[in-house]
Amino acid sequence: MYYIGVDIGGTGVQAGIVDEYGKVVLKKECRTNVEAGFESIMDDIENLVNSLLLDKNISTKDIKSIGFGVPSFINNEGLISCVNLGWNEVNFIKSIKGRFEDIEVFAENDAKAATLAEAKFGSMKNKKIGVMYTLGTGVGGGIVINENIFIGANNMGGAIGHTIIGENYYDCNCGNNGCLETFCSATAIIKHATKLIQEGRKSLILENANNDINNINAKIVFEAFKENDEVAIETINRFKLYLAKSIASIINTLDPDVISIGGGVSRSSDIILDGLDELVKQHLLYKNENFADIVCASLGADAGIIGAAFLN
Amino acid sequence: MYYIGVDIGGTGVQAGIVDEYGKVVLKKECRTNVEAGFESIMDDIENLVNSLLLDKNISTKDIKSIGFGVPSFINNEGLISCVNLGWNEVNFIKSIKGRFEDIEVFAENDAKAATLAEAKFGSMKNKKIGVMYTLGTGVGGGIVINENIFIGANNMGGAIGHTIIGENYYDCNCGNNGCLETFCSATAIIKHATKLIQEGRKSLILENANNDINNINAKIVFEAFKENDEVAIETINRFKLYLAKSIASIINTLDPDVISIGGGVSRSSDIILDGLDELVKQHLLYKNENFADIVCASLGADAGIIGAAFLN
Repeated sequence: MYYIGVDIGGTGVQAGIVDEYGKVVLKKECRTNVEAGFESIMDDIENLVNSLLLDKNISTKDIKSIGFGVPSFINNEGLISCVNLGWNEVNFIKSIKGRFEDIEVFAENDAKAATLAEAKFGSMKNKKIGVMYTLGTGVGGGIVINENIFIGANNMGGAIGHTIIGENYYDCNCGNNGCLETFCSATAIIKHATKLIQEGRKSLILENANNDINNINAKIVFEAFKENDEVAIETINRFKLYLAKSIASIINTLDPDVISIGGGVSRSSDIILDGLDELVKQHLLYKNENFADIVCASLGADAGIIGAAFLN
Repeated sequence: MYYIGVDIGGTGVQAGIVDEYGKVVLKKECRTNVEAGFESIMDDIENLVNSLLLDKNISTKDIKSIGFGVPSFINNEGLISCVNLGWNEVNFIKSIKGRFEDIEVFAENDAKAATLAEAKFGSMKNKKIGVMYTLGTGVGGGIVINENIFIGANNMGGAIGHTIIGENYYDCNCGNNGCLETFCSATAIIKHATKLIQEGRKSLILENANNDINNINAKIVFEAFKENDEVAIETINRFKLYLAKSIASIINTLDPDVISIGGGVSRSSDIILDGLDELVKQHLLYKNENFADIVCASLGADAGIIGAAFLN
């Protein structure tokens, strides 16, 4: 028996046939044709899934369920609004069910789906309570209890990127000040390094960005950190301090077994994890007790497909 | 069938026989003789419970279980350390079991026990996910999922008073800066009003404290708020702003059905709840969705006994 997982992004759709052990056995992708509108995207997804079945030489009868990770919030009525996809309260599930009548269909926020994959098959496997930090352009997250995604009463749970953790010099896209996302994302790293350089601080970062401040990205800052660049060190240490404050607050609240760090920024996990345990411990209430293992996500980009496949 | 709940505090022990509907049918108390040491306190508790049974004319056979709320952290081995009681890793459960051999015995942190009572019989009844804020000298808390206390992997969960929510001008007792407790406790109110007055601000608060700055308490500040005193308004509004930031962060993370506010400070719930919903909404990620009801705790001081009685 197989599962199908579909990870819908703003630029591309990734679909895969996944076996019961969480292994992606066949994978295909197509462009997300945002301009063409909702039904056209759904047509493309239908074709993509049928093409997977054809290539694997199986039918919908061999598929236990099909799940979708979508880059947006899904409300209690199953309606999806997503600015990046140009969707406004579309009835996604209904449209899918009309296309794959014999299969059970599930949909969830993509970060939550990736969290589920890490819980079932990756860095948070066999743990009772796990919290995922997805550190990328923004900060996503998810909570897993007994291998189920914890969605809360209105499906709003797990948005740890928008927990307020300090006071910051710029506001978050969500309109608030002090969100974790404004301290611990790639965007936060770029903004802070840029700010210091604009204040007149000398830094390798600017050189490595071809002397164009608009070229600065998180990778350049992490590389400068390795070369002991002061602006990079100050920027990354600030990032780590607030990450530690957030993790300690999550431990004080939820006391998980494991905290998993994924997303693009986690490619520099050697730098992020170095000394992080000690920094977290300093911010805990119960400093002498065992606390969550802090680890890196292990499934990489496939987590979205795998997690979507195992939604239920 | 009855339950017995015992709420152990730093100055007194409250014990009660509770019926299956969460009603306290008989209640007794004794002084907590901290100086006399652990075993002596346990002797007093044994006598208090036996005296309850005698007065109600029932035996241990009529009791389903006996539960204890203790003002401290209980680690995974069941050991309790509590500075206020002078206990250092005492084996509380073992001592109780030696005294009441026929009854099931449970113990939990007192704030968590009170949270359980509110979930089973009070302000959070019939809700799937509830979060309790106990706003007193400090800030306690608890999380309830399906009428069970959520304790986490190492029993450290629910300590929302020590989530970091901003940057403050004084550090928390736990050694960190920015804990909710330093913004939203009676202590925080007293410290902030005192600070403003020491900075030269004129205020009714000082008059009402008999012109002795050391006499200021939270009640005086709330009373001055009602008389439009500017220092009181600034202090209480700051308290409410950070309470809203914390509640919004909890909703973004856990998305509970209900948030219940108890503790001594909640006696001024008319002032605290006024406009709080709107302030929370401003700080949410999903501003257009339904979110948790924010209510006052309803069981008052009996919550400790009732919650202890229903531990399991």
